[in-house]
Amino acid sequence: METFEVRTGGRTALHEITAQVEAAVERSGVREGVAVVYCPHTTAAVTINENADPTVARDFLMLVDRTVPRRDDYRHAEGNSDAHIKSILVGADRSIPVREGRLVLGAWQGVFLCEFDGPRTRRLHVKVIEG
Amino acid sequence: METFEVRTGGRTALHEITAQVEAAVERSGVREGVAVVYCPHTTAAVTINENADPTVARDFLMLVDRTVPRRDDYRHAEGNSDAHIKSILVGADRSIPVREGRLVLGAWQGVFLCEFDGPRTRRLHVKVIEG
Amino acid sequence: METFEVRTGGRTALHEITAQVEAAVERSGVREGVAVVYCPHTTAAVTINENADPTVARDFLMLVDRTVPRRDDYRHAEGNSDAHIKSILVGADRSIPVREGRLVLGAWQGVFLCEFDGPRTRRLHVKVIEG
Repeated sequence: METFEVRTGGRTALHEITAQVEAAVERSGVREGVAVVYCPHTTAAVTINENADPTVARDFLMLVDRTVPRRDDYRHAEGNSDAHIKSILVGADRSIPVREGRLVLGAWQGVFLCEFDGPRTRRLHVKVIEG
Repeated sequence: METFEVRTGGRTALHEITAQVEAAVERSGVREGVAVVYCPHTTAAVTINENADPTVARDFLMLVDRTVPRRDDYRHAEGNSDAHIKSILVGADRSIPVREGRLVLGAWQGVFLCEFDGPRTRRLHVKVIEG
Repeated sequence: METFEVRTGGRTALHEITAQVEAAVERSGVREGVAVVYCPHTTAAVTINENADPTVARDFLMLVDRTVPRRDDYRHAEGNSDAHIKSILVGADRSIPVREGRLVLGAWQGVFLCEFDGPRTRRLHVKVIEG
């Protein structure tokens, strides 16, 4: 398993991590299998979506900020309940097939860390299983 | 890894792909392990839910269309920001245990491609890991 | 693969299952690999989030109940469309890396069964893959 860090900017942001995940797959030596990308934080998440146009990330963050507002009738005293809820809705883990030593991402897909309570230094794990 | 295509109908729709995934598991020859179902598109997703009553899919699409409207204060110029957002919320990948050569789906569960920006021809990957 | 049961309380609730999943990993004997936690129900889900402060779960359930109301313009006749929709949004499966025989959960992370149409007795599967 490999672990790398990402320094996030802003309270909410999407940071592309495709290159780091691909590098971990390459170093694993696995040619055929599955890569699990795992976020060990409770106010962040991992997603796979378009990496060509940054307005997609902006539109996603705008919509979820409106659906899950920062201030609401929350009880959690740390003021970041919205970030926990967004993390649950997006999910901490993604599994991507590996073929010929590379992720089988679609033409427009990239892997992203979703920061919902930054800026912070976040860690991501990549575990590659052969099979 | 196996890949198959689904021709979707309508702008948003759920298409059951359980039979195709089961067939890929059978052809893999794996008796015990995990099947990863992966959608390489950024305006579609994969989910697991009820396959007995089609009104469940209809209710899901109605609710997410209202929560994530097609027209809103979006910047992405292609007019399909809602589809990208829904894709992020549902997720591109599902991992299902395999036992005795079959998916361990619950009694009411089926695997579905979620189309959020169709109709199109979509591809799905199935990777089965033994273990 | 191991299966265990959880008796849920209330119509919606989060029940921590970290100890049961860790025990299944330990019994598997796998030291390095991935654990897949799978929910075979269509009105429940599995998530990973904070296990220190129970108000996080309360805030999550409050927000999703408001976004996906129990009563709405639904067609599904069983009166639990909201539970199916929440199940799709959270997801039935989680994949967690295993290192030195333990889940690589973050400091604040626990694994939870999300009950959206209880109380019921729910089953969870844990499949651990070596690699």
